Amino acid sequence: MSTNDRTVGIDDLPIRDELRGKSPYGAPQLDVPVQLNTNENPYPLPEPLVARIAERVAEAARGLNRYPDRDAIELRTQLAAYLTKTGRHPVTVENVWAANGSNEVLQQLLQTFGGPGRTAIGFEPSYSMHALIARGTGTGWISGPRDDDFRVDVTAAEQAIAENAPDVVFITSPNNPTGTAVEAETVLALYEAAQAAKPSLVVVDEAYVEFSHRDSLLPLIEGRPNLVISRTMSKAFGAAGLRLGYLAAHPAVVDAVQLVRLPYHLSAVTQATALAALEHTDTLLGYVEQLKTERDRLVDELRVIGYEVTASDANFVQFGRFDGAAGSHEAWQKILDRGVLVRDNGVPGWLRVTAGTPEENDAFLEAVRALKKEQQA
Amino acid sequence: MSTNDRTVGIDDLPIRDELRGKSPYGAPQLDVPVQLNTNENPYPLPEPLVARIAERVAEAARGLNRYPDRDAIELRTQLAAYLTKTGRHPVTVENVWAANGSNEVLQQLLQTFGGPGRTAIGFEPSYSMHALIARGTGTGWISGPRDDDFRVDVTAAEQAIAENAPDVVFITSPNNPTGTAVEAETVLALYEAAQAAKPSLVVVDEAYVEFSHRDSLLPLIEGRPNLVISRTMSKAFGAAGLRLGYLAAHPAVVDAVQLVRLPYHLSAVTQATALAALEHTDTLLGYVEQLKTERDRLVDELRVIGYEVTASDANFVQFGRFDGAAGSHEAWQKILDRGVLVRDNGVPGWLRVTAGTPEENDAFLEAVRALKKEQQA
Repeated sequence: MSTNDRTVGIDDLPIRDELRGKSPYGAPQLDVPVQLNTNENPYPLPEPLVARIAERVAEAARGLNRYPDRDAIELRTQLAAYLTKTGRHPVTVENVWAANGSNEVLQQLLQTFGGPGRTAIGFEPSYSMHALIARGTGTGWISGPRDDDFRVDVTAAEQAIAENAPDVVFITSPNNPTGTAVEAETVLALYEAAQAAKPSLVVVDEAYVEFSHRDSLLPLIEGRPNLVISRTMSKAFGAAGLRLGYLAAHPAVVDAVQLVRLPYHLSAVTQATALAALEHTDTLLGYVEQLKTERDRLVDELRVIGYEVTASDANFVQFGRFDGAAGSHEAWQKILDRGVLVRDNGVPGWLRVTAGTPEENDAFLEAVRALKKEQQA
Repeated sequence: MSTNDRTVGIDDLPIRDELRGKSPYGAPQLDVPVQLNTNENPYPLPEPLVARIAERVAEAARGLNRYPDRDAIELRTQLAAYLTKTGRHPVTVENVWAANGSNEVLQQLLQTFGGPGRTAIGFEPSYSMHALIARGTGTGWISGPRDDDFRVDVTAAEQAIAENAPDVVFITSPNNPTGTAVEAETVLALYEAAQAAKPSLVVVDEAYVEFSHRDSLLPLIEGRPNLVISRTMSKAFGAAGLRLGYLAAHPAVVDAVQLVRLPYHLSAVTQATALAALEHTDTLLGYVEQLKTERDRLVDELRVIGYEVTASDANFVQFGRFDGAAGSHEAWQKILDRGVLVRDNGVPGWLRVTAGTPEENDAFLEAVRALKKEQQA
């Protein structure tokens, strides 16, 4: 038998039973001119920031033989300053925790507050990693309801929480893949329901909040130690390649996740790069304003062309309606045939397009205009 | 209640019961002139490598708005080339997987092959993160035996495996904190025992193998799809701050961990920095040779001074014997009082010192010489 003997596969290994037959998560990475499928920010970092990153990383590299600051104090301090400046609520280093992408933040939260014998609920369709990270941490997953217009129905959601008494409640705002924001009143009602039922941890995933018409829900952490706001530098900071997620919450939550975090989880180069990016916040938030304008243009033009569009507070737009799952998949392929990659998130009848540069969005609009004509012919 | 109301603590949160009363893992980070407590490589990266890192990271930063290569193909290819060159066994990108430190590699392995309702065994004292990552993934932990001289007794270990039928077996070679290498014959015997008992995954943690008098056990993966070699760039590559761990195994193992890995877990800056370091392998392995010489000097001089020393194949040395746990802790404090920080790993009667620069080692030897005189007085 050679090392790479392909007669041996995953199913010949002693993996966990619930993993058998599963596939790794991930959008297809296809080589297409216009890629509007993963909600990336289309604007590369400005050259002065690239130079500053190189400078700060070189500085960090000179001490790379040593372990990084395990508590990432400087980075968490600067993230707290950013939140304080933009979130209408003062927070400090004690309120903030950071990890390799918000995925790792959520994984640490589920290892601490979920796990074997416990459950988490999300209101679907929503960010599918919530369920996958729950599975990866042995947390049972409960699929909570959404309305036909993809909003969280407070009464139905409260009922699902009361019935299931989950240990962790995910509320995604703006929601992915629908773009739907959640009102503060809804979060407060679900927080109360979750405390009455268990009490449980409520995680508000605000990965896309900088693109929203509404303010961050950050002020809600005041007086609510079981409420966590999750954020990322992937989208608004144009740094998907950096993998830097963070949370804001009561200091006790920050203390608690340190019981499960891998020591030195955040590399010195990640910390240095994130700190450089935080020095350029104003420039990067300028790109966000451009993207919000483009997002609104996509919504308007898609409606003019004749598509249904879900109101969006994110850097992407959900549009349809196609004829069920087969119809949306067929539309996805036809748009791809025109050189534009959008995302089929498995929401029957709907597709999701990321707001790109004006030129990318024009290419997309041309493709869906042609598609509409073809389907009406 | 203010956001930082300190009357609310971890125990007021709905965390998992088994986490209550626990403390985060981590060596004390004290500000001391000579730090020989975390097995870091004392040699900073050479300036040409620092410049190359800055160059490659700047290149990566220009595309930082995009997600990184999810499969880290270029990095895994270069890691495979390094292993092939140094490990007496040819491997390819298909055999190699990488993550944020070997801790994350081990966490992914335990999520895939361990987890709730499953168990893992290690032969203790050994790397304490094995048990902690088991706990973090809901895997039951079994403490297997070692001899009084800190070697793995094959018969006792086989018996522990047969009795417990663990799902994952950890063999650390060279072992941390004792420095003890494990013979290939021992690994083969335990692999056979583990396959007969379950079958289970056998993980050989070779974090320190570049410092060993023996060759890597990499060739043992041939024909053994349930055998994994775990490695790191933290020690031999002098890159503890980079957080880059990797494994070599049958391609089916590499496929399997992708079922649980967080998507895009490895940032573009981490990949770029690791690739730069791999370009400078020869220089960095030159430092390893210097450290091996220093390690051997520490062993010799400690024995001359009158200490017992465990034979070491790593970049650190275990020495004693002090009077139980109280004695080793007292000795740790007295060495610290002389400006040298070593590690008290909780092995009663023993302490661990990292091989530093010649000057650092001189300072350490002076401190323990004085300590010995004081204790003999």
